Amino acid sequence: MRHQFDEDVSVREIAEGEFEAQFSSSWLAGPALLGGYSMVVGLRALATALPQPDPLSVTAHFLGPLVPGPAHLRTDVVKRGRTVSSGQVAISQEGRERLRLLCMFGELEAQPCSRHMGEGPPALPPPDECVAELDDGNEFHQTMWDNFEYRISPDAGGTLTGGRSGDAVTRAWIRLADGRDPDPLALVAVVDALPPVIWEIGVTGWVPTLELTVHLRARPAPGWLRIVARTRFAQGRLFEEDAEIWDSQDRLVTQSRQLAMIPG
Amino acid sequence: MRHQFDEDVSVREIAEGEFEAQFSSSWLAGPALLGGYSMVVGLRALATALPQPDPLSVTAHFLGPLVPGPAHLRTDVVKRGRTVSSGQVAISQEGRERLRLLCMFGELEAQPCSRHMGEGPPALPPPDECVAELDDGNEFHQTMWDNFEYRISPDAGGTLTGGRSGDAVTRAWIRLADGRDPDPLALVAVVDALPPVIWEIGVTGWVPTLELTVHLRARPAPGWLRIVARTRFAQGRLFEEDAEIWDSQDRLVTQSRQLAMIPG
Repeated sequence: MRHQFDEDVSVREIAEGEFEAQFSSSWLAGPALLGGYSMVVGLRALATALPQPDPLSVTAHFLGPLVPGPAHLRTDVVKRGRTVSSGQVAISQEGRERLRLLCMFGELEAQPCSRHMGEGPPALPPPDECVAELDDGNEFHQTMWDNFEYRISPDAGGTLTGGRSGDAVTRAWIRLADGRDPDPLALVAVVDALPPVIWEIGVTGWVPTLELTVHLRARPAPGWLRIVARTRFAQGRLFEEDAEIWDSQDRLVTQSRQLAMIPG
Repeated sequence: MRHQFDEDVSVREIAEGEFEAQFSSSWLAGPALLGGYSMVVGLRALATALPQPDPLSVTAHFLGPLVPGPAHLRTDVVKRGRTVSSGQVAISQEGRERLRLLCMFGELEAQPCSRHMGEGPPALPPPDECVAELDDGNEFHQTMWDNFEYRISPDAGGTLTGGRSGDAVTRAWIRLADGRDPDPLALVAVVDALPPVIWEIGVTGWVPTLELTVHLRARPAPGWLRIVARTRFAQGRLFEEDAEIWDSQDRLVTQSRQLAMIPG
């Protein structure tokens, strides 16, 4: 069975290392496409050239707005290794590069042992006691929200649940709305799927991401994922947003950090 | 006055976008050079091609061991922008690429306002009540330690102070030993200058870094820096190490995260 997600992130090779993609208008996260979505499209292209199956690390530099419509991808292998390999992707629209990715692939474990876990999964009420309707109080049209099912913690999701918590943290259950089980590729979109937690502390509107790095830590088990996103330091115009995703077996499957800017 | 640090990270342009460097044997961190040191050398080369003065974000993929001796650097501008610019650097030794960098430059503030600080600088006794001698209980020859002055917190630096805390965190004062004041460039070396905190929980020996991303958050004030490094999640063979540096004016100046691997 082919899910909508796989349709939306598909690429077509047109020459060695050259791909075409059609960015879907169902992934808008404000005035531009969700960064994590375009990163998955880039990973799909690069994966064809590398010997290992799973992304371990993906770094994105957002150079210009990615929008629905045709896109051109150029992939380059940086190193093919026995354990890990690296490559880069340049995604252009209308002849201008909009996104640069530097990616590392390897082989993830499905059931890694816990050696040292300073924290466990985020504490959340059961999904049916959480808030299913996103209300961001924002006029942006977020088509991408329809691609996910959210169950937001009532006590840590202020803006999203109609209030404002004053603490820059959101905790939620999340899964793809099309019924597709998570895999490392999809996690790169999921980790970017919450609205900016900085909205919780009174910053409003579009906060452009400069850089986003996602680490994949294990192959996820099927079922609901739990995500926690947090901004600890907003200083001057710069802030970071960290996120972690845990799977239904209580394993850490993804960690991310982005550097973003408050428009001046 | 020219400091030893600037001597060690100097580059010489030999053609447009092509540089030579001489990696110093005084930056060994075990069997290979300190990653943060070679990142600074790469940033020095790329800085000549970009209009903004400060690194904002640097991502490194470690592809092979960097060793003392000659190195070749190739820089490519990804995007020259009005506010931020991106570029990449490939560092090769003996004809093989060993390090790939993806870097963003911009202009950092010296005195950014605090909008939301979830934590303050790490709690540390005054420098003269901390431990000045590193003792890692490890046979690796760490010449790079002589480039810094360390004052390690007696209660959060187990391995380094001769014990083992059992908690994967280290807090310390740190500054360059040559008397040079910190700047954003030097912070990229400083943030990588503590021994792996995973040693605190019983993992020993060489733990190769796969990927390291450093964010610069403000121009540092002169004087002692405070650094805190922490591993929260070691699961299977993968773990992250996060670090933060604060300056003498209690401002967050650097944040970093690396993905590293426990050899199998």
